Amino acid sequence: MKIELVLGITILGSAIALIYSFIRTKWINKQPVENEKLKQISGFVADGAMAFLAREYKTLLTFAVIVAAFLAIGNQGFVRLQSAAFIVGAICSGLAGYIGMKVATRANARTTTAAANSGISAALKVAFASGSVMGMSVVGLALFGMLIVLVTGLLITGNSIVNFSETITREDFANVILPIITGFGLGVSSIALFARVGGGIFTKAADVGADLVGKVEAGIPEDDPRNPAVIADNVGDNVGDVAGMGADLFESYVGAIIGAMVLGAVLPVDSISMQLTLIFLPLVLCVVGIVCSLIGILCVRAKPNKSPQTALNTGMFVAAILTAIATFPISFLFFGDATFGNGIGALNVALASVVGLVTGIGIGLITEYFTGTNKRPVNSIVKACETGPATTIITGLGIGMLSCFPAVLLITVAIVTSFVMAGLYGIAIAGLGMLLTLGVQLAVDAYGPVADNAGGMAEMAGFPEEVRVITDKLDAVGNTTAAIGKGFAIGSAALTAIILFSAFKETMGIPYIDITNAWVIAGVIFGATIPFLFSALAIIAVGKAAFYMVEEVRRQFREKPGILKNTELPDYKKCVDISTAGALKKMMLPGVIAVITPVIVGFAAGPEMLVGLLIGVTASGVVMAIFMANSGGAWDNAKKMIEADKSIGKGSPSHKAAVVGDTVGDPFKDTSGPSLNTLMKLMCIVALVIAPMLKAFHGM
Amino acid sequence: MKIELVLGITILGSAIALIYSFIRTKWINKQPVENEKLKQISGFVADGAMAFLAREYKTLLTFAVIVAAFLAIGNQGFVRLQSAAFIVGAICSGLAGYIGMKVATRANARTTTAAANSGISAALKVAFASGSVMGMSVVGLALFGMLIVLVTGLLITGNSIVNFSETITREDFANVILPIITGFGLGVSSIALFARVGGGIFTKAADVGADLVGKVEAGIPEDDPRNPAVIADNVGDNVGDVAGMGADLFESYVGAIIGAMVLGAVLPVDSISMQLTLIFLPLVLCVVGIVCSLIGILCVRAKPNKSPQTALNTGMFVAAILTAIATFPISFLFFGDATFGNGIGALNVALASVVGLVTGIGIGLITEYFTGTNKRPVNSIVKACETGPATTIITGLGIGMLSCFPAVLLITVAIVTSFVMAGLYGIAIAGLGMLLTLGVQLAVDAYGPVADNAGGMAEMAGFPEEVRVITDKLDAVGNTTAAIGKGFAIGSAALTAIILFSAFKETMGIPYIDITNAWVIAGVIFGATIPFLFSALAIIAVGKAAFYMVEEVRRQFREKPGILKNTELPDYKKCVDISTAGALKKMMLPGVIAVITPVIVGFAAGPEMLVGLLIGVTASGVVMAIFMANSGGAWDNAKKMIEADKSIGKGSPSHKAAVVGDTVGDPFKDTSGPSLNTLMKLMCIVALVIAPMLKAFHGM
Repeated sequence: MKIELVLGITILGSAIALIYSFIRTKWINKQPVENEKLKQISGFVADGAMAFLAREYKTLLTFAVIVAAFLAIGNQGFVRLQSAAFIVGAICSGLAGYIGMKVATRANARTTTAAANSGISAALKVAFASGSVMGMSVVGLALFGMLIVLVTGLLITGNSIVNFSETITREDFANVILPIITGFGLGVSSIALFARVGGGIFTKAADVGADLVGKVEAGIPEDDPRNPAVIADNVGDNVGDVAGMGADLFESYVGAIIGAMVLGAVLPVDSISMQLTLIFLPLVLCVVGIVCSLIGILCVRAKPNKSPQTALNTGMFVAAILTAIATFPISFLFFGDATFGNGIGALNVALASVVGLVTGIGIGLITEYFTGTNKRPVNSIVKACETGPATTIITGLGIGMLSCFPAVLLITVAIVTSFVMAGLYGIAIAGLGMLLTLGVQLAVDAYGPVADNAGGMAEMAGFPEEVRVITDKLDAVGNTTAAIGKGFAIGSAALTAIILFSAFKETMGIPYIDITNAWVIAGVIFGATIPFLFSALAIIAVGKAAFYMVEEVRRQFREKPGILKNTELPDYKKCVDISTAGALKKMMLPGVIAVITPVIVGFAAGPEMLVGLLIGVTASGVVMAIFMANSGGAWDNAKKMIEADKSIGKGSPSHKAAVVGDTVGDPFKDTSGPSLNTLMKLMCIVALVIAPMLKAFHGM
Repeated sequence: MKIELVLGITILGSAIALIYSFIRTKWINKQPVENEKLKQISGFVADGAMAFLAREYKTLLTFAVIVAAFLAIGNQGFVRLQSAAFIVGAICSGLAGYIGMKVATRANARTTTAAANSGISAALKVAFASGSVMGMSVVGLALFGMLIVLVTGLLITGNSIVNFSETITREDFANVILPIITGFGLGVSSIALFARVGGGIFTKAADVGADLVGKVEAGIPEDDPRNPAVIADNVGDNVGDVAGMGADLFESYVGAIIGAMVLGAVLPVDSISMQLTLIFLPLVLCVVGIVCSLIGILCVRAKPNKSPQTALNTGMFVAAILTAIATFPISFLFFGDATFGNGIGALNVALASVVGLVTGIGIGLITEYFTGTNKRPVNSIVKACETGPATTIITGLGIGMLSCFPAVLLITVAIVTSFVMAGLYGIAIAGLGMLLTLGVQLAVDAYGPVADNAGGMAEMAGFPEEVRVITDKLDAVGNTTAAIGKGFAIGSAALTAIILFSAFKETMGIPYIDITNAWVIAGVIFGATIPFLFSALAIIAVGKAAFYMVEEVRRQFREKPGILKNTELPDYKKCVDISTAGALKKMMLPGVIAVITPVIVGFAAGPEMLVGLLIGVTASGVVMAIFMANSGGAWDNAKKMIEADKSIGKGSPSHKAAVVGDTVGDPFKDTSGPSLNTLMKLMCIVALVIAPMLKAFHGM
């Protein structure tokens, strides 16, 4: 196994992805936007989104500087480079969100135009192009960032890069390369968490505020330009669902790669060449995934006689199947006949990767069952809406909690199966296996908000009804396929977190951690409360910001009666400001808690309790993430079913109850729920980063 | 340490408690009920409650027979007696609920009469007498049941009871006495779980149904006799809040005693005499607690110049302080200068008990802060009600989640502190310490529903407004003090669960269980999902039963227009039947899941994963229990604040939103939340019970 070759392949993979993104962006920019009103509105939205992102990143600068200083001062020797790697990670994470958002704010008005001029196929093409730019630039940027820190690390060890595989030692990894990689991971994860929480608060405060007063009280439709919060709502889609999700999945991808590489480096195996195999296999698997994703993306073509759903499904499944197949020869190329642990070889590792893929799809299908329209769970919410908001909420909460069981059962089976196949490394590869085709998965995910926004803009700019029908159709397709993407993200987060705290234990050199030790138990129980605390802060933030938004929208309607009569323009900017202020003010505390808790527990109570804490966070985090995502998703679709049912009609008591459900579900599924994925990994990475300091502090 | 003496003291303690209950019951029965309408209504309620309890116990008979058969067939030799002990436990648990409910259904109309005839002091006296009967009969019955199985076990070992302390061996405990005690615990816990869930579904289906149609749609006040669900609602208070809570806290008490005794028996210590000290100390501490509780109860006297709150507080604090003080001499009497473990002696053990007491009070105060009227959290819900039901729900969920953090932090500190003081035995004693004064705590808890019912009956029987004012005042006091009781129950459940699974590990003879073993991790994550599954089933059951109740009440209003005009009587019985059917049908599945999961995991995946599972259940169970209890409590009090605020008024949008919050909170705080306490202990006890079979099965 030649490291130089792996690095070369990785550069190539990263370059392919980034070049594709560049070309596609050019193409999107060339698409026309003809309608003047549309141009104006899309300008409002793009400006609002960019302004928010700029202010958000500025706020995070302070945080980044403090952490970087802590890493530079707290560490010794080369480990200080963690500090620089952290900054690189933070920048990459921010960049991933920025690029996705930039292209999405370009694509939305162009999708509207395409829908108006040429119909659904053309609109799908523009919207999906935007998603694919985001997908490919996230994976490309991830590999590129990894390469920067990895090559820096390799150069610093003083080994000659051209003959690296022969001269490198395990100490080089332990003392230089691993700390740098984990520093990079810390930067990625922490910025992703803030971006998700900040974007989530922004978008849901706007959404809730717009819905509660606009839809329920004033009785005007969604995306009506008379609603003062409507621009904030559309800005929110971009900063939350696009930029937030981009940073989030960038983090998932990097987390899974780092988890597998770090574990590969700390696992006790016989030869250095086997160690290198374990460390570098993940990178090549990622490149394979990128190539297969690109093929999948190119397969997505809407034709008049083919539904958009089929087009997207084709892309996803082509990529997944190709990747699954390609994993086997790659694994055999890397391992040959060699084995590690209890006779674990090429076949075992490849199978573990397939376990991950299958589990991800399985969780996705479970998610789809519990949140999909016309399935039993959502139907039961629709029925509960007849008896008012209280039963709507009770039923939705119940369904979300219920859905955890099969999903977690599947994750449990995946943990045990991949462990039986290939030990802890098997779990790492299974976690990575779920995300190998992230390029195309994210393309599908990120296309949804663009279609949604395009619809909103069609409404605001006064396009005819049929344009909205097209974008709604595209949006609905995106929702279903996105459910599967969520399954991958949650499953992978669970496995990655396990790998990261196992790697922490190995790094600390602790032989075993007895779970019936009171300190460990206390850690587990305390850890289980962190996702609740974190969710509480995010939810309460949304509630508060939404409250101010509601007050503001009511005030505008009251003080400017011309707004509803279409004779006066609402003050959109005031609403954008309220969301921005709420998000920036409230995103810091939850993020800081996530970063600081492992540090306090690690130093004050020791590594045993810290591992207990991390397991507690992971266990309760996984369940809470699924619960919140699925309750939210189910309410959302119940509302859509009621809105689509002509016999019930908007404004009926059932519909009002459904809107309440959807409003409660919004912060669940778009603010706190998805942040939990990042939370658990971030806390584990913090532990890994402070491991050398902990060892010194506790004299181990 | 003479075992004979301990048994004698325990008999005495049990007798004191039961005799007090008997005398007090006689006194209550002698109080007059003069109003004919009141007599009739209270007859309806008592009959409905008894009919439900009879049907519930009949349904549980099948379950009990199957489990008893499993224990009789699956075990060898004397261990088969587990089966009989299980039945004794089940009967005791059922009896505790029955007695409490019987006296509560007697006391409610008498409290109404006392309030009407003689004012608040007399009413407090009757209601609190009812509570104290329940409190003392629960603790008396618990010790009595323990004595039956303990003495049977001692006799079977073939040792002479008069000279027992000298001849008994560790094998006698391992092979005979422990299995019998755990069998008893299994009976107590499983019936308690069913009673809590069944009663919880009944009461909340009725409550939600009555509120949604009566209060929100028809706009009639609470407890209006025109509401067809009003009798079902009052029956529910008795079968849920009284019988369910009685069985539940009976289980907490027995669980804490068993946990400490079993741990005392399996801890490796040098001498058999020290082992006996550890085993039998808990019983004597309980007797001390009973005597102090009785003194506390006798201190509760309402005087015209003293608020009822002060009276109840005096009782609670006198009992707590006396018990804390008395623990020290008792501990020194038992241990003398002897120590175990790393020099753990009398002082350490007594201090651990105080840690438990202080923690319980601390959690209670936290609960009170998060759920109390006029405190910041509830005020924020009141404010959120202005913007409708969605923000009300979001804020309430956020507050519940937030409240977990300080409470769990306190539990974490208690675990670590009591462990540092006296090892695992310290944790056991801390868990028991929280419940030593259960006699008076439960008296205060159980008095609330009586006062509540008395108010409902005053309303239904057409008593003047001032009677209702008195009972409302009594009820409000009960709510505040009950918060502290909940703190004790949750804290104690967490510590007891830890002790029980630690005892399981010791019983299995496993030296350590590595938390980074993939099977253990999988167990923890899977375990974390069980409380969610369990809560989901309970909540969905309430939602469904409430849906039918709403339909039925609407039907009656529609088909019998005379009901609202007071010219026609509603069909109360139909509503009672709907609640009964819903409760009996839906209580089985969650209970069976709790019992069967540890069996499946233990046999199919082995004891390591089982311990992981139990820890996962405990960690997520504690957090979920606090979350649900406090969200529910906060919504309840927010509604009360709005109803009390004349400037807002009933029927306003704010009030409607508050009712939605309260309705969602109902199943949280009275169905699923409190059941979780029992769930985690029950699953641990199941593991302990099957430990001998698991050992044989896995050839350990």
